[in-house]
Amino acid sequence: MLKLENKPLKVINLGLESFADDLKSMGVKVESVDWKPPLPVDKAMREKIKANYAKKIEPANRQALEIINSGRAFLVGMGVAREEVPGMHDNLILHAGPPITWDRMCGPMRGAIIGALIYEGRAKTAEEAEKLAASGEIEYAPCHEHGCTGPMAGIVSPSMPVFILRNETYGNFTYATQNEGLGKVLRYGAFSEEVIIRLKWMEEVLYPTLKRAIGHLGKIDLHSLISQALHMGDEVHNRNRAGTSLLIRQLAPALVKTMLDPEQTAKVLDFINGNDHFFLNLSMPASKAVLDPARNIPGSSIAVVMARNGTDFGVQVSGLGGRWFTGPALVPDALYFPGYSKADANPDIGDSAITETGGLGGFAIAAAPAIVQFVGGSASEALSYTLSMFDICFGESSSYQIPALDFRGTPLGIDVVKVIENNLAPVIDTGVAHKNPGVGQVGAGVVNAPFEPFIKAFEALADELPGSC
Amino acid sequence: MLKLENKPLKVINLGLESFADDLKSMGVKVESVDWKPPLPVDKAMREKIKANYAKKIEPANRQALEIINSGRAFLVGMGVAREEVPGMHDNLILHAGPPITWDRMCGPMRGAIIGALIYEGRAKTAEEAEKLAASGEIEYAPCHEHGCTGPMAGIVSPSMPVFILRNETYGNFTYATQNEGLGKVLRYGAFSEEVIIRLKWMEEVLYPTLKRAIGHLGKIDLHSLISQALHMGDEVHNRNRAGTSLLIRQLAPALVKTMLDPEQTAKVLDFINGNDHFFLNLSMPASKAVLDPARNIPGSSIAVVMARNGTDFGVQVSGLGGRWFTGPALVPDALYFPGYSKADANPDIGDSAITETGGLGGFAIAAAPAIVQFVGGSASEALSYTLSMFDICFGESSSYQIPALDFRGTPLGIDVVKVIENNLAPVIDTGVAHKNPGVGQVGAGVVNAPFEPFIKAFEALADELPGSC
Repeated sequence: MLKLENKPLKVINLGLESFADDLKSMGVKVESVDWKPPLPVDKAMREKIKANYAKKIEPANRQALEIINSGRAFLVGMGVAREEVPGMHDNLILHAGPPITWDRMCGPMRGAIIGALIYEGRAKTAEEAEKLAASGEIEYAPCHEHGCTGPMAGIVSPSMPVFILRNETYGNFTYATQNEGLGKVLRYGAFSEEVIIRLKWMEEVLYPTLKRAIGHLGKIDLHSLISQALHMGDEVHNRNRAGTSLLIRQLAPALVKTMLDPEQTAKVLDFINGNDHFFLNLSMPASKAVLDPARNIPGSSIAVVMARNGTDFGVQVSGLGGRWFTGPALVPDALYFPGYSKADANPDIGDSAITETGGLGGFAIAAAPAIVQFVGGSASEALSYTLSMFDICFGESSSYQIPALDFRGTPLGIDVVKVIENNLAPVIDTGVAHKNPGVGQVGAGVVNAPFEPFIKAFEALADELPGSC
Repeated sequence: MLKLENKPLKVINLGLESFADDLKSMGVKVESVDWKPPLPVDKAMREKIKANYAKKIEPANRQALEIINSGRAFLVGMGVAREEVPGMHDNLILHAGPPITWDRMCGPMRGAIIGALIYEGRAKTAEEAEKLAASGEIEYAPCHEHGCTGPMAGIVSPSMPVFILRNETYGNFTYATQNEGLGKVLRYGAFSEEVIIRLKWMEEVLYPTLKRAIGHLGKIDLHSLISQALHMGDEVHNRNRAGTSLLIRQLAPALVKTMLDPEQTAKVLDFINGNDHFFLNLSMPASKAVLDPARNIPGSSIAVVMARNGTDFGVQVSGLGGRWFTGPALVPDALYFPGYSKADANPDIGDSAITETGGLGGFAIAAAPAIVQFVGGSASEALSYTLSMFDICFGESSSYQIPALDFRGTPLGIDVVKVIENNLAPVIDTGVAHKNPGVGQVGAGVVNAPFEPFIKAFEALADELPGSC
């Protein structure tokens, strides 16, 4: 043990835990204090926000929260992106996160675009596809600007089938592709032959089979399925086992009733049963469907989108229209699969943080302690993550509940002002992609969003308010 | 507020909570102390057990627990009771709980036997059936003495299809009928035409359809399904939503692959999807399958059966062979459905307490706080129930875990000695049947087992030990 003048040394550690760990390993008694460097936010802006919060911001946030809480997302059908997704055309490819140009895209996103161009028949080889992708002929736009959400790279190309969701309270629609499963998949940037063959099967067999079953059912209440899944160990971002199981229960009888080919129907059931993440591509657009009507409420500081493109982390805020506030996406401190480390990891990527924005995912992780256990934590840590998010949320969900908190509603409505004032960033459950195209998932973890987009949004809010700083 | 010489009255309440509630309603400050009347157990017997515990009982219990923990129950097929259930013959009817004669049977059990005799074609009317049932021509025996477990009345008659389970570690088999769903059903004592029609459909359509699918799969790992269901909000006694969902996931592709008639297959899927308790008739025989090999370990004080016939509550203990220790079944203090009260309730009934005996049900209720919420309690009460059961169990499950307790194993191996020494009876989740035949379920709750069977078993254990009392 280290000693000072023969007295045991005691150190109070501010901030960095790794420093404390070094000291602890030397036998020094360390008390960690939860100190964080202050956020670089202009004092006058803070004052201006503070002065306007109760009168301008709070009522707007109350309105936004009520809209989010009264939303009800249903799966109402399926179609092909070219025909269903607003603004989709033959030269448009949608991607996860805020806007980005080809030259700034990360490896997995480029890989997924290469795969999509081969899948679309626009290129025969990766080289051809890459050339076309960079030629200027292909346009890129965020999924979120076309009613879509996409996990990881989040690529939506014109021929891809999409789920069609409708928020029955407000009448708005959202869309998402079908989840491919794990392993070599487009959303992690893989574009080998097996990836393309699977995408074609999903277009030619999975899609029409599911479309018939959903058509037979009329609609599927995703709001109810998500509420139940939270009582069954899911947070519907990184754990979707219950959601997928409940979906199969509803679909299976309808699949049989609308069956054309028993062999294909069995393959469809096997495919969904073999992929616990199948429900993710419904929980994401369901979250977007309830958040979108809460956009454009003047003065509201509630985030309606958090999304990452693997290079930038972007946030959109209700009171600030369609503007993106961005900062560099961080490389997650995750649990890496054997053989991989942080050095292999791509910065955080995907639209899946829309679940956290909607009070699910990391915000509901107390409902899914198995996720925290998987990355080496405990059930009480899962509770702590969820409890801490109440500090940065304007309210709580009136539908989505945490059983372990006596069925309290999940923290809902990320308030940019509270993020800054509490110096606390949203927690996000995430899968980690390899930084190179085609490798796939290398880890998983619970990470914090970067502060930069929230600081920029906070400053923009201050700018919009009457008076000078 | 009541006052004594103008000072606020403070009462310390020993035992009965209802007395405390009365005082509280009068504004008196009450501190309840967890006092219980001492159990009427002979002191010399207590001493004898105590003297032999470490040397004789504990090693036997360790062996029993290891056997239970190493069991692995699989669903391996289906058949008809007449052909599969050991000792079944045309004049035999199996029932829940310990042995009982027709004249002592409760209403729901009589109703279910009347229904079974009509279903078997042995009687055309309820009157005919009742006459035959009482004639002496029909033999009655406990399910548990023929490898079976039955929920509520638990009737198994020769023509009923049964699931066949095998503990792959020890090679022993168990059996259970298919769950009928809720409403007017045989297990709650109903015997109207709709009940008999459903039973016939279950024999002629549900059974052969499921049998083909299970045959195609070869076997289904129930140990794994139960372990997962506990991570998904079930305790697999009164909540089986996850277990049923996970089962459907596995069965659906196989049902399609072995399909003869799409319409019937769709009906089978609809039927299972419409009945969240379908999995109960697998979790029960799965529990029995892992407990049975722990029978007959000389000296072991671990309960291998708890079962109720609606009149008596029976317990069997590993070190005491096939003997039943019984006492009157209690009327549950449950939450009653609107229009019903405790006065309508039948005493506790069914073999389903085999789940508690196997570390599930009430013992695992911390995994299923929604059950406690349903009967007016909180998630922390659910935790308390489970935690208290560690006090009367010899160990914990090495497979079945409680997420909210950081994935600690469930309390496993009810030790009759600990029940007596701690003056604490096992908690059981239960549905409540109306006392009259044909009415059905009138409530649900969490109840304690009666002490009498445990006291008798304790005394029998003492008798078996060397030396005199």
